[in-house]
Amino acid sequence: MLIARNMLSMPQDENCSLLIYVPFIEYQTLSVNTRTLRLNSRLRAMIKWTDPQLAWDTSEYPYDAVMLPVDKIWTPMLQVTNGISTSMEHDSNDLLVYSNGTVDHKVHINAEINCEVNLFNYPFAGDECPVAIETLSNGDCITSLVLDQVRSIDGSTGDWQTNYAYLKKKREDRNFIAVGLKISWSSPLMTLLLPTILIVLADFVSFALPLDGGGRNGFKVTLVLSFVMFLNLLNSQLPGDGECSPIIRIHFCVCLVLLVLSMLVSMVLTRLAHDGSLIFFHLLKQPAPQSSEDIEEKDEEELKADIHIAQLDGPEDVQMLRKVVKFLQGLEDKQSQKERNHMFADKLDKIFFLFYLVFGIIYLVIMFGIMAAYRCTVDHFNFWY
Amino acid sequence: MLIARNMLSMPQDENCSLLIYVPFIEYQTLSVNTRTLRLNSRLRAMIKWTDPQLAWDTSEYPYDAVMLPVDKIWTPMLQVTNGISTSMEHDSNDLLVYSNGTVDHKVHINAEINCEVNLFNYPFAGDECPVAIETLSNGDCITSLVLDQVRSIDGSTGDWQTNYAYLKKKREDRNFIAVGLKISWSSPLMTLLLPTILIVLADFVSFALPLDGGGRNGFKVTLVLSFVMFLNLLNSQLPGDGECSPIIRIHFCVCLVLLVLSMLVSMVLTRLAHDGSLIFFHLLKQPAPQSSEDIEEKDEEELKADIHIAQLDGPEDVQMLRKVVKFLQGLEDKQSQKERNHMFADKLDKIFFLFYLVFGIIYLVIMFGIMAAYRCTVDHFNFWY
Amino acid sequence: MLIARNMLSMPQDENCSLLIYVPFIEYQTLSVNTRTLRLNSRLRAMIKWTDPQLAWDTSEYPYDAVMLPVDKIWTPMLQVTNGISTSMEHDSNDLLVYSNGTVDHKVHINAEINCEVNLFNYPFAGDECPVAIETLSNGDCITSLVLDQVRSIDGSTGDWQTNYAYLKKKREDRNFIAVGLKISWSSPLMTLLLPTILIVLADFVSFALPLDGGGRNGFKVTLVLSFVMFLNLLNSQLPGDGECSPIIRIHFCVCLVLLVLSMLVSMVLTRLAHDGSLIFFHLLKQPAPQSSEDIEEKDEEELKADIHIAQLDGPEDVQMLRKVVKFLQGLEDKQSQKERNHMFADKLDKIFFLFYLVFGIIYLVIMFGIMAAYRCTVDHFNFWY
Amino acid sequence: MLIARNMLSMPQDENCSLLIYVPFIEYQTLSVNTRTLRLNSRLRAMIKWTDPQLAWDTSEYPYDAVMLPVDKIWTPMLQVTNGISTSMEHDSNDLLVYSNGTVDHKVHINAEINCEVNLFNYPFAGDECPVAIETLSNGDCITSLVLDQVRSIDGSTGDWQTNYAYLKKKREDRNFIAVGLKISWSSPLMTLLLPTILIVLADFVSFALPLDGGGRNGFKVTLVLSFVMFLNLLNSQLPGDGECSPIIRIHFCVCLVLLVLSMLVSMVLTRLAHDGSLIFFHLLKQPAPQSSEDIEEKDEEELKADIHIAQLDGPEDVQMLRKVVKFLQGLEDKQSQKERNHMFADKLDKIFFLFYLVFGIIYLVIMFGIMAAYRCTVDHFNFWY
Amino acid sequence: MLIARNMLSMPQDENCSLLIYVPFIEYQTLSVNTRTLRLNSRLRAMIKWTDPQLAWDTSEYPYDAVMLPVDKIWTPMLQVTNGISTSMEHDSNDLLVYSNGTVDHKVHINAEINCEVNLFNYPFAGDECPVAIETLSNGDCITSLVLDQVRSIDGSTGDWQTNYAYLKKKREDRNFIAVGLKISWSSPLMTLLLPTILIVLADFVSFALPLDGGGRNGFKVTLVLSFVMFLNLLNSQLPGDGECSPIIRIHFCVCLVLLVLSMLVSMVLTRLAHDGSLIFFHLLKQPAPQSSEDIEEKDEEELKADIHIAQLDGPEDVQMLRKVVKFLQGLEDKQSQKERNHMFADKLDKIFFLFYLVFGIIYLVIMFGIMAAYRCTVDHFNFWY
Repeated sequence: MLIARNMLSMPQDENCSLLIYVPFIEYQTLSVNTRTLRLNSRLRAMIKWTDPQLAWDTSEYPYDAVMLPVDKIWTPMLQVTNGISTSMEHDSNDLLVYSNGTVDHKVHINAEINCEVNLFNYPFAGDECPVAIETLSNGDCITSLVLDQVRSIDGSTGDWQTNYAYLKKKREDRNFIAVGLKISWSSPLMTLLLPTILIVLADFVSFALPLDGGGRNGFKVTLVLSFVMFLNLLNSQLPGDGECSPIIRIHFCVCLVLLVLSMLVSMVLTRLAHDGSLIFFHLLKQPAPQSSEDIEEKDEEELKADIHIAQLDGPEDVQMLRKVVKFLQGLEDKQSQKERNHMFADKLDKIFFLFYLVFGIIYLVIMFGIMAAYRCTVDHFNFWY
Repeated sequence: MLIARNMLSMPQDENCSLLIYVPFIEYQTLSVNTRTLRLNSRLRAMIKWTDPQLAWDTSEYPYDAVMLPVDKIWTPMLQVTNGISTSMEHDSNDLLVYSNGTVDHKVHINAEINCEVNLFNYPFAGDECPVAIETLSNGDCITSLVLDQVRSIDGSTGDWQTNYAYLKKKREDRNFIAVGLKISWSSPLMTLLLPTILIVLADFVSFALPLDGGGRNGFKVTLVLSFVMFLNLLNSQLPGDGECSPIIRIHFCVCLVLLVLSMLVSMVLTRLAHDGSLIFFHLLKQPAPQSSEDIEEKDEEELKADIHIAQLDGPEDVQMLRKVVKFLQGLEDKQSQKERNHMFADKLDKIFFLFYLVFGIIYLVIMFGIMAAYRCTVDHFNFWY
Repeated sequence: MLIARNMLSMPQDENCSLLIYVPFIEYQTLSVNTRTLRLNSRLRAMIKWTDPQLAWDTSEYPYDAVMLPVDKIWTPMLQVTNGISTSMEHDSNDLLVYSNGTVDHKVHINAEINCEVNLFNYPFAGDECPVAIETLSNGDCITSLVLDQVRSIDGSTGDWQTNYAYLKKKREDRNFIAVGLKISWSSPLMTLLLPTILIVLADFVSFALPLDGGGRNGFKVTLVLSFVMFLNLLNSQLPGDGECSPIIRIHFCVCLVLLVLSMLVSMVLTRLAHDGSLIFFHLLKQPAPQSSEDIEEKDEEELKADIHIAQLDGPEDVQMLRKVVKFLQGLEDKQSQKERNHMFADKLDKIFFLFYLVFGIIYLVIMFGIMAAYRCTVDHFNFWY
Repeated sequence: MLIARNMLSMPQDENCSLLIYVPFIEYQTLSVNTRTLRLNSRLRAMIKWTDPQLAWDTSEYPYDAVMLPVDKIWTPMLQVTNGISTSMEHDSNDLLVYSNGTVDHKVHINAEINCEVNLFNYPFAGDECPVAIETLSNGDCITSLVLDQVRSIDGSTGDWQTNYAYLKKKREDRNFIAVGLKISWSSPLMTLLLPTILIVLADFVSFALPLDGGGRNGFKVTLVLSFVMFLNLLNSQLPGDGECSPIIRIHFCVCLVLLVLSMLVSMVLTRLAHDGSLIFFHLLKQPAPQSSEDIEEKDEEELKADIHIAQLDGPEDVQMLRKVVKFLQGLEDKQSQKERNHMFADKLDKIFFLFYLVFGIIYLVIMFGIMAAYRCTVDHFNFWY
Repeated sequence: MLIARNMLSMPQDENCSLLIYVPFIEYQTLSVNTRTLRLNSRLRAMIKWTDPQLAWDTSEYPYDAVMLPVDKIWTPMLQVTNGISTSMEHDSNDLLVYSNGTVDHKVHINAEINCEVNLFNYPFAGDECPVAIETLSNGDCITSLVLDQVRSIDGSTGDWQTNYAYLKKKREDRNFIAVGLKISWSSPLMTLLLPTILIVLADFVSFALPLDGGGRNGFKVTLVLSFVMFLNLLNSQLPGDGECSPIIRIHFCVCLVLLVLSMLVSMVLTRLAHDGSLIFFHLLKQPAPQSSEDIEEKDEEELKADIHIAQLDGPEDVQMLRKVVKFLQGLEDKQSQKERNHMFADKLDKIFFLFYLVFGIIYLVIMFGIMAAYRCTVDHFNFWY
């Protein structure tokens, strides 16, 4: 019985080296955390190596192959170098040993890998993450790893898609699997981009609402608060600062400031349409002659005095009619005054809208230009130095 | 004592094969994650196999059966092939060995299984997920598994119901349990579909609100924002892109665009009802003759001049009355002007409503046709290649 | 030393049976998940059994009792049959063995138990969950369990209270602890029921708001959206479909539909109060004579013509006065027309309110009748078949 | 070598007792869950005991002390009696054994402890939780524990502060650490109390808004819904029912009912100010004489008839003027009718406000009296019976 | 074979001391929890020590170095002293032993460290956290640790950045890695500070909205509720009370109180603009002469009587005209009364705004002064006493 030999130490030849052959690796992305930029991967690998001490003479023990319990013999340990946590588990409790000492084994590795995915063009982001696979190479004793074939299994991973998984080499002894990841843009497009675009569009069209009645200010504050809500939602899904932090965040910030600006201008113009001038600031300079309405009032009193005098001369009915006409004319004047105020505010409103529209279009052209043209690159290999 | 024999290696005959008989499996779905499309299952299996080295001569040791500690003898390992994680645990610390070497054992397996459930017809989705059960079949040494009977335990699993669990075979050595899953549609129907339908219905009826007063625009923006909230809720519960991503997501997007469109049209019509024309755009072309109100104002001034002249000839009271009549006629004209503006906007509003209604009905017929008729199919067996 | 004997196999007599005596069990509910209907329990049990191979001759070894390390001798394994996961741990690393072979041990078991609690009368729900306790009874070798006393420890478990824990038997060998659970209704009452009742009440009283001004529609849409929010909250706390799914969910759905209906009727009546008739639908039939206001306008033009003719005959001041009177009468007619429209809408509004009130009361009586009278029963023992 | 002796059983003298001396315990509260009332603690303890079998003759083996691997000798197990889960871990893999058999060891214990903290005066709550420390005392073999010194480490624990940790005794063999916990009130004060106080204050001041225009009802419904949101927030942070459940929850409920009441009264008064009487309920009794406006209308018609008669006698212009005066008087009457309605509603509004204010103040005095004066006590030692 | 020697005890010389050399440590911050102020770190260390019992004679066994299974020989245990939990794992299952007994090993340590980061200047906070590394130093047997080089790996850690990691010493035997942490301020700036600043700005500008119509109160209550929402968001991200709790929390509280104050003042002024005086409180003193409108009404009745008398003398048409003039004058008086009320309220509004603006600016200057100038310091070394 081979178990009795208790072969728990590593097979070592003179130059303390060992060749481990990995004919097949199955790669599967379990999940990608967009916030912390970590990906959970699962690898299933077949491993073959030769342990001369496990060989036997087939003449003596007439079997070609034998199954041995995995915890009674030495097995190599694969590691993901850029993994935050790597756990290798045996696929089964037994492994196959051939008479020449070759061992056939299957393991699976669950690894959490740090990969600063380039999210600059979010939500149309995609990148290639390396999954570096190594065995122990402690000082003098070198265990060399020969990888052969990688196959990507398509696991449904929520927001991210794994496009491909190729085997690449950085140096002779530095193997890694290049995993092509792409964000599935339909969900963020619909829950983040579409609503925000619609909000900005509604803000543009809300200039159609009349200034005085019609609740333009209430409408705009609702839009601003909804936009802020989406900004929070976006930020809770995107990672913090980094080399290639998403440009969309800055874009949203600019949009928010524009929305608030348009709201504030709208509020000031409402006052203007109401009062004729921003007496708001007049007060600060000369609080004495109080307001234009005050003067009008005095005029009216004067008018009354006038009427009292008028009452003396001329027939009574004509005087009465005169009073009626004066009253109506007062109303008319006030009305036309109001209309003039309102027209002035309306004109300013239209000029601001024009300016806002032109600036908005120029800004959008520049922003989408940057978004489409600029490619940000991240060095994913800073763990090998 | 048999323990002393330390039978930790697998029983192996000449052709290195072993038959494992599983007379009974109890299947239970613990939970289904609709977002990541993974299901947690729990299987309890009875296993029987024969280990010739554990047999004894009943004449020598007069017991038919004996209990042995499970960690002192070899036990087979069942695996769920399409499971992301599989953990097999022994049901008890002891197992029963008969004198002929037959071993009776009970294990339970907790497995997390990747199953791309077809959610096309969400929330009326249902699918059949395979739970593939295998033992190790490493190279030459074949361990064949014979499954007999599967029983589904009804575990309360929140949003999903397990309808059935049958035993099926894909190939001679590929056994799997076909698990029939169905979403329990009452909860998403009530929290997602019912509110959204009510929102769209309220948007239709909101055309009954008068254009000028009555806050139709405020009403519509509230509806749109609530709808967006539900869109977010829906997206947080559904998985990302895939082969059979739910059609309901696209449907909701179309609904959102329709709601926003109706809101924007309503806002523009409010302006139209207020001003008579979309002078909004007039301004951009010819800012010189400013606005129609400006001209009216001039007319009024002319009128006043006229009155001043009229005051000279004729008796005073008649002149006074004339002024009163002119003022009232001015009011009347303005009123009828307003009414004409309003009627025009109202007519456009009704035409848009008609168009909106017809388009909405046609769209709904097509959408529900696709939803009811189209069946999307997903290949669940892509883990066997 | 007894340790040297390495007594790791189960004590077995001729008929391969063993009696395990459990004099005392301490039961504690750690938490209940209302959503998935699982309860986490913790049991502390004292176990006594006799292992003849551990007995010693007190004459030879003069101690009555000895402490032995727990991992060097065989210990029985208690299991919760209807548990999804059961983990038994030893209370200490040593156990007490008496000279006659009796072993005294303490273990604690953490189990997650599937219990379809009857939530029909939520939030006044309560039920009895069985916690079945067994040892292994594999085929021929029977380990019989004798339970004696159960004591319930009052652990603060958030939303659920454990009222009692009795020992019961279903069959001779089927012991279970019947755990009486009751939801603590104060929290859901205050956060779910109270607000929703207040919302429905506010909807009833909102009929007091005048139809035209006063923002009844805005008020009602706010109420509806808040209600929907609570519906979502409720659904996120209650489990999916099952045998005894909470009636309160259906009740809330009906309430939502009623709220929306009252909102829609209110909107249509606002139009009616404004326009006099639902010309909305007139348009669809006969778009030619456009609207009643159109006709009025023609009348007015006729009137003006009339005035122009009148101006020719009679003294000028009388004609002027006549014009004034005509204008005022026109105003008065319009006013009374408006009032009639408004009164008609108001009457319809009151009739609808009456109908709504009566239907609401009848519905509530029936619903609370069902809630109070109907008892739904769930079979908790479907794990024993 | 001592390892060879394999001293894995407990040191036992004749009366099967052992003294364990714990000179120093470091206590640290890791986190407190306000919802489930559990605290996570971490204890680091130095333990000393004497194992006579580990003693050696220094003449034979000339070392005073020796380090031994911890898993090769017996170590005592400390337990937290009222802990839901206790895990003791060795601080290092080696322990120090002196030549007289005294063993020096360091362990740390992570325990989750059930402690029904008295939250009656939340958010100014504080309580003393016992952390009972014991070793196994199984039947006859008594392991007595002697604790000496406890030191509390100040760990930042989010919402709770650990004020002190003293050593106390309940009985000779029942040691516990009395841990003084106090909620850090600044966070709940700012996020729960401050906003709710401001909402109630705003509701009081909202009586200043005029009844008819000014949107008092809309304002009040917004306040109510915000309050409900905070009620939900509060409930999600506080535990369920218990002996000393927080009085603040009842207080909030009363506040909510008051807010809703004030909203409903405000709505009914709006109707009263609009219509003059709550004809709302008139309708139910006598739908025949429809409404007071109806009667007015008849009067008007009568008036018109009157005018037609008047037109026959007297000069035309006087008749015309009479009509004008009648019309104006009708307007005036309606206006004064409206003002009377409005004044009546306004008076009722003020009376209700007065009543509301007085009741509110009395209620607050009583509530804060109870909050400040009443001390609720919880028995924390119900785990020792 | 060296394995047979079973070297599981610690290498000990006469004075029971051992030197452990750590030539290289790789430090990586995995995550920082801003709420509980704990940081998860990962350290990878190379360790070298000499175990004389593992040395061999190269003449006898002709290899310079040999790989040995890690669980068969003694390895030192590194600990993070201020860690709440420390778990050391071997990097591989084998380690390299040289013929002179020197052992080369690699380990990695995952530690959760309690570090009260100074958050006073949040979101521009940054601090230096010590990660103290020790080995066991139990009583007499001293294991001294010699650290050489530390390298910080840049892991993307969401909200926090690790700037540097230096090796420092507090005492001869107290090594620690000083880790420089800095919050990445862009995310909290955009989701917390920017919206709140915009809300306060909008509140300032909302004074431009007219008092009576224009919905200033509704606007302000919306702002207040949004602000409260952000306050909640902030509090859910910041830690509880501590030595250096963030000043921004107090700042936000002051802002909230200011916002509510401005809202309340605005509401009271709305009443003032509507009624002319806060008769609100008049009522409480003298409910007898009811209201000023009441008196006016009486005047009007008197007036009517006057007219009836006047009707007797003079021609009828003049009397009629007199009535018309009286009516119009009554209207005019009421209008001017209203305007006076409104102007008075408007003046108060402006004065309050001025005061509010001045106070706001002074407050902001002081607050930002404290924020920029004051440096709060936390003693991070209270775990060493």
